[in-house]
Amino acid sequence: MNFKQLLKHPSSRPFIDQARFGVEREGQRVNLTGDLTRTDHPSVFGDRTFHPYIQTDFSETQIELITPVTDSIHELFQYMSAIYDVAARSIPENEMIWPLSMPPALPAKDEDIMIAKLANFEDVLYRRYLAKEYGKRKQMVSGIHFNFEFGDDLLRSLFVQQTEFSEFAAFKTELYLKTARNFLRYRWLITYFYGASPLSEANYFIDKPAPNEPVRSIRNSSYGYTNHPNVKVSYASMEQYLFDIEKMVEEGKLSEEKEFYTPLRFRGGKRVADLAKTGVRYIELRNIDLNPNARLGIDQEQVRFLQLFLTYMLWTEEKEAADQWVEEGTRKNEIVSLEHPLNQTEFIEEGRYLLTDMKKMALELEQLEALPLIEKMLEELERPSETLAGTIYQAAKESSQHQFATSLGLSYYQKAHERPYQLAGFREMELSTQILLFDAIQKGIEVKVIDESDQFLRLQHHDHIEYVKNANMTSKDSYIVPLIMENKTVTKKVLREAGYRVPNGAEFTTMEEAVKAYPRFANKAFVIKPKSTNYGLGITIFKEGADLADYQAGLAIAFSEDRSILVEEFMPGTEYRFFVIDGKVKAIMLRKPANVVGDGQRTVAELVAEKNLDPLRGTNHRAPLELIHLGELEQLMLKEQGLTVSSVPQKDQVVYLRENSNISTGGDSIDVTDEFSESYKQIAVSAVEALGAKISGIDLIIPDKEVAPENSATAYGIIEANFNPAMHMHVYPFAGKGRRLTLDVLNLLYPELNILTQN
Amino acid sequence: MNFKQLLKHPSSRPFIDQARFGVEREGQRVNLTGDLTRTDHPSVFGDRTFHPYIQTDFSETQIELITPVTDSIHELFQYMSAIYDVAARSIPENEMIWPLSMPPALPAKDEDIMIAKLANFEDVLYRRYLAKEYGKRKQMVSGIHFNFEFGDDLLRSLFVQQTEFSEFAAFKTELYLKTARNFLRYRWLITYFYGASPLSEANYFIDKPAPNEPVRSIRNSSYGYTNHPNVKVSYASMEQYLFDIEKMVEEGKLSEEKEFYTPLRFRGGKRVADLAKTGVRYIELRNIDLNPNARLGIDQEQVRFLQLFLTYMLWTEEKEAADQWVEEGTRKNEIVSLEHPLNQTEFIEEGRYLLTDMKKMALELEQLEALPLIEKMLEELERPSETLAGTIYQAAKESSQHQFATSLGLSYYQKAHERPYQLAGFREMELSTQILLFDAIQKGIEVKVIDESDQFLRLQHHDHIEYVKNANMTSKDSYIVPLIMENKTVTKKVLREAGYRVPNGAEFTTMEEAVKAYPRFANKAFVIKPKSTNYGLGITIFKEGADLADYQAGLAIAFSEDRSILVEEFMPGTEYRFFVIDGKVKAIMLRKPANVVGDGQRTVAELVAEKNLDPLRGTNHRAPLELIHLGELEQLMLKEQGLTVSSVPQKDQVVYLRENSNISTGGDSIDVTDEFSESYKQIAVSAVEALGAKISGIDLIIPDKEVAPENSATAYGIIEANFNPAMHMHVYPFAGKGRRLTLDVLNLLYPELNILTQN
Repeated sequence: MNFKQLLKHPSSRPFIDQARFGVEREGQRVNLTGDLTRTDHPSVFGDRTFHPYIQTDFSETQIELITPVTDSIHELFQYMSAIYDVAARSIPENEMIWPLSMPPALPAKDEDIMIAKLANFEDVLYRRYLAKEYGKRKQMVSGIHFNFEFGDDLLRSLFVQQTEFSEFAAFKTELYLKTARNFLRYRWLITYFYGASPLSEANYFIDKPAPNEPVRSIRNSSYGYTNHPNVKVSYASMEQYLFDIEKMVEEGKLSEEKEFYTPLRFRGGKRVADLAKTGVRYIELRNIDLNPNARLGIDQEQVRFLQLFLTYMLWTEEKEAADQWVEEGTRKNEIVSLEHPLNQTEFIEEGRYLLTDMKKMALELEQLEALPLIEKMLEELERPSETLAGTIYQAAKESSQHQFATSLGLSYYQKAHERPYQLAGFREMELSTQILLFDAIQKGIEVKVIDESDQFLRLQHHDHIEYVKNANMTSKDSYIVPLIMENKTVTKKVLREAGYRVPNGAEFTTMEEAVKAYPRFANKAFVIKPKSTNYGLGITIFKEGADLADYQAGLAIAFSEDRSILVEEFMPGTEYRFFVIDGKVKAIMLRKPANVVGDGQRTVAELVAEKNLDPLRGTNHRAPLELIHLGELEQLMLKEQGLTVSSVPQKDQVVYLRENSNISTGGDSIDVTDEFSESYKQIAVSAVEALGAKISGIDLIIPDKEVAPENSATAYGIIEANFNPAMHMHVYPFAGKGRRLTLDVLNLLYPELNILTQN
Repeated sequence: MNFKQLLKHPSSRPFIDQARFGVEREGQRVNLTGDLTRTDHPSVFGDRTFHPYIQTDFSETQIELITPVTDSIHELFQYMSAIYDVAARSIPENEMIWPLSMPPALPAKDEDIMIAKLANFEDVLYRRYLAKEYGKRKQMVSGIHFNFEFGDDLLRSLFVQQTEFSEFAAFKTELYLKTARNFLRYRWLITYFYGASPLSEANYFIDKPAPNEPVRSIRNSSYGYTNHPNVKVSYASMEQYLFDIEKMVEEGKLSEEKEFYTPLRFRGGKRVADLAKTGVRYIELRNIDLNPNARLGIDQEQVRFLQLFLTYMLWTEEKEAADQWVEEGTRKNEIVSLEHPLNQTEFIEEGRYLLTDMKKMALELEQLEALPLIEKMLEELERPSETLAGTIYQAAKESSQHQFATSLGLSYYQKAHERPYQLAGFREMELSTQILLFDAIQKGIEVKVIDESDQFLRLQHHDHIEYVKNANMTSKDSYIVPLIMENKTVTKKVLREAGYRVPNGAEFTTMEEAVKAYPRFANKAFVIKPKSTNYGLGITIFKEGADLADYQAGLAIAFSEDRSILVEEFMPGTEYRFFVIDGKVKAIMLRKPANVVGDGQRTVAELVAEKNLDPLRGTNHRAPLELIHLGELEQLMLKEQGLTVSSVPQKDQVVYLRENSNISTGGDSIDVTDEFSESYKQIAVSAVEALGAKISGIDLIIPDKEVAPENSATAYGIIEANFNPAMHMHVYPFAGKGRRLTLDVLNLLYPELNILTQN
């Protein structure tokens, strides 16, 4: 099979880059001084029997982060970043993830290395067997497993150009076999570049022979995590491969097939034997050390190079019989693994040839964007100090590897914690969606961002699929609910009919009708507002009635925003947002206009600058609070109070900079959930129920929350109900207790998970 | 109590016109030649035990139309018109509603007058008693019952200005008592204007003494439907009133309280006795004859005059003791009822005084708009020929009252049937909503239009409330469904994942990315379209691939409509709309571009003109089909076929006038539901299920519907799914069978009603 010819065919060209990716990344949990932790895998991750993203590998302290399969490198790193963020912020606050493949100093006693406390006893038994067979210490090494699948369009396009295979599955198997053999043959080059375990820490080689450190990769050498030498498997054909593995198991050289620790595994069905029927679906590279310079243990450039390298493995011809060819690769890899990290490699000539030939391939396949990367690797080939092993060894020499790793670990720790409300990988999405994604990943609900710019998620647990938009628009609310809430007149009619106090008023579609109704409002406190628009546009408030001219002016302003307007009684009092989920008030929030509190010393401008230092404040709704500006409106507001930005307010004097209380203009969000009696909460709950909603933010005007609603006919008025209320401001309020409403949403969607929520 | 002073108080001024209205209108069903029908009350109305709008009165042939209580005269006539339309189009096609109070010629034999076949045996017994007590013939008279309630704001504003009553209910009772006594005293004026039963038809006075016809109102005279003279009830106070009624019942002069046939009834609680506790809530005028000149039996001017008259009854002082005062009214009314319709009334002086005093009231209350109406009534007072009785009598003289009534009845019949897809009273609403309203009223579901311009309905049956927007947006669909369907990328992802064939393609947000993907599409049939916009804007179709320049031009067009665009495989075939409700395909529609079929004689212009005569064609979506235009686009399309509007197409030649098949540009809707095999329907049903929807119009491209989908991988492709699909085009298609999908929607919402639907 001449795969090179197939790849060169013009009809394959559009799909050359098409591939699917997945990464599993292990890492030891350590404390902030780099010592192995002794805590259990955090219970906040829920059940390890199904968690798709966050698992434990051999040891209870060895966290394993698993991405879903993605269609692009960009997407792969989105999920990797997110899962890392979730793990880093969910483990105990004084713990971080060790950035090296080689473990930190290990306990002197074997029994102090905790085997993962898995629920399935067979899994525990297997780990006990491994401990016995290979020793616990070797099992503490971490790495990257890199799953790679050529794109389906690419494979089909290659398939249709050949005639040798009539079955697509068989064709794919042949293709992956060639890729695998060449990869095994040439993998020493990957070890040269990405080998990153030059040194071991204390108590690693406590009872085993040790190499003469430093080397390029302890992990990829025979000192690493490999099978006993009597385990031999042929890659000549799938039949032979499967036959050999089965034989090894039968002869007891392997306890079971998954104990076959090859640097490359074929993946297909559930069990290795299924590969005979299903063909190879993808391959798993297991020889990638953790890159400590990358927060995630691997970076995008590495993945892109691996993709190019694997494509080249398919492209370039094999030059010897399969078993011999692979064996030669194993020999070279062992040598390169154990070379000094600052020495040039023995096989530099072959390396030069491979990279130069890759460049030719890139040119022939019109992958011009790949050339600078290959060029860079060519340079690295000449300069071992720039390889991963080289940089780590040099840094370790300056202090120690432990010091180096601890300090890198800390920098990743800080990065994960500095904006706890954001989720790496998805920072372009709305904050509430980021928080919901965080919680879903933490709880092991499978997430798929099916439209990032539209905030559209697909969640899955077992067979239970839910779609979520904007973090709280779900299948749990019926379609008519948002339609009711969108229409202020309809909302009021429904609420009034159900017995709730809403502002009296009327809707008008012509100036004439509205003017005719003037006597009804003339001497009252009332509001004129457009029927449908939001954000306070077109609203005029008359707190003490209005003369006809002012009334008409107010009408004109409202009509300029909408064809229908409302004239309504004005209800005095404080507005509170009651957030109701599934029949319970989960948060109550008071929003205060942008303000500063004087200290008798600093100016308004200085007070604003200081308040803006709060890490909760940011811009463009990517933080729970917005920066306070000192623009025209704010300065006007100051002027009305006889102040300027240079005035020095007295101690404890509250200076408001805005009239409106929107968070988006620098307002403060203050959680007051616990300050309200049950009776007010009950009103919010039952009003939301009257509207038929499961999730709603309902706004009540309350003149005095200390007066029980049953004791006053005007204790409250309902202003509006929102079907997509902001959640992030409740989770991270300016003051008061944060309310993780996203967990309540997940709990509503997945009651079977018994997610622990507040209240 | 000086009610005049209260009414004059400025704080009452805004509410002077505020009132609530309701009408019950009886009418005999007759055939199109004006003979009483012998058919049963139509079963299509469902169950009379709860029907709120369409009932039978005494006789099975005597339909009774009941409006809900409304807050304005405008709304009253909306409901009255709608209910009339429903009744008129739901009774057998050869029947109409007799427009007179006096029945048409009655059967000679008493047993041929059918008592209403009610389910409740007590109701039947009561009618049998009435037949015996008053004779069946008198019971066949029809009329208007007019329910009137002063507005709540008005009443409360009057209440707070007085000190005599501390209880609002007692105050209201006093107010209505005064109104009632004056009304009874002066009602002769209403009889003079609106009396409309001057003549009887055959077999009415078969066994009773008859007046010397013609008169003003047989019905309002002692020859009409009144209690025996020994029934006397005082209106002096509520206590006296209730005491007297109870006494009459005890003494057997009335079988039960509802047999008290006063021209004015007090209404409040469920039973008359409840009035003592609850106070009077509204009054029911029972002395209004059917106005045959008004399709609905009464017109808006009459209702407005009655409102003014009742307000005046509250305003003007009583001049004698209660019983004497009422008795004097009864005496005068009897005289006026039996006056010759063309004679001036004996009480013209009192009439002049009353109307002149009403004018003064209108001036004092600043109701200037009322003045022309009062002026008109003043003129009618002088010219009896212009009263209702006068006009009927004159028309009857020209042929016969029977002839006159039959011809009016026929004109109302035609008006009800000429646009069967529209519903009178609500013609401004979307057609699908009009049809749904029609069906709901027919089936006895209570309807409330809570926002007319927003197509928002509230439906109710017993305690079961449903809100409906745009006729098919309901509580039965979950909120996430329209959000999924709104997003073409998400829809495709969900459908593809569920195993359905959707166009392959990709979404792009930058020109650069999209251009980079060019090789993937270059040689295929493909479409470029904006992601979110609809109505075909920004779409370019390349049926045979495209060169790079054309591809880029197509991208630019799409990007001018949206920030995200889709490039997708083009699926050849015919597009069908599958309308799925609750797991069943209820209609399948083929839409054909605007076209005419030649006859070898007429020009294109003539053929278009003829096709446009179809009453199903109208404008502005207020008809199921739109008129075909011969504008620029159509002429261009003709030109491309080598034709002009003056060309004469050959016999059976189909000439298309548009490329697009939208109904809105004159396309034909063709029902093809029965032409499809189950397997295609199953695809539509299960795809809609995969999207989670209860109601959806899903568009399938099918190259050949005779090829079973199980026999071809490209038998179909799903183009899109709609969450608010048009329904009217299915109910009234251009060709093929109409599918009343609105009934299916009601059935989905109210399964407990067991509404009979098609399929």
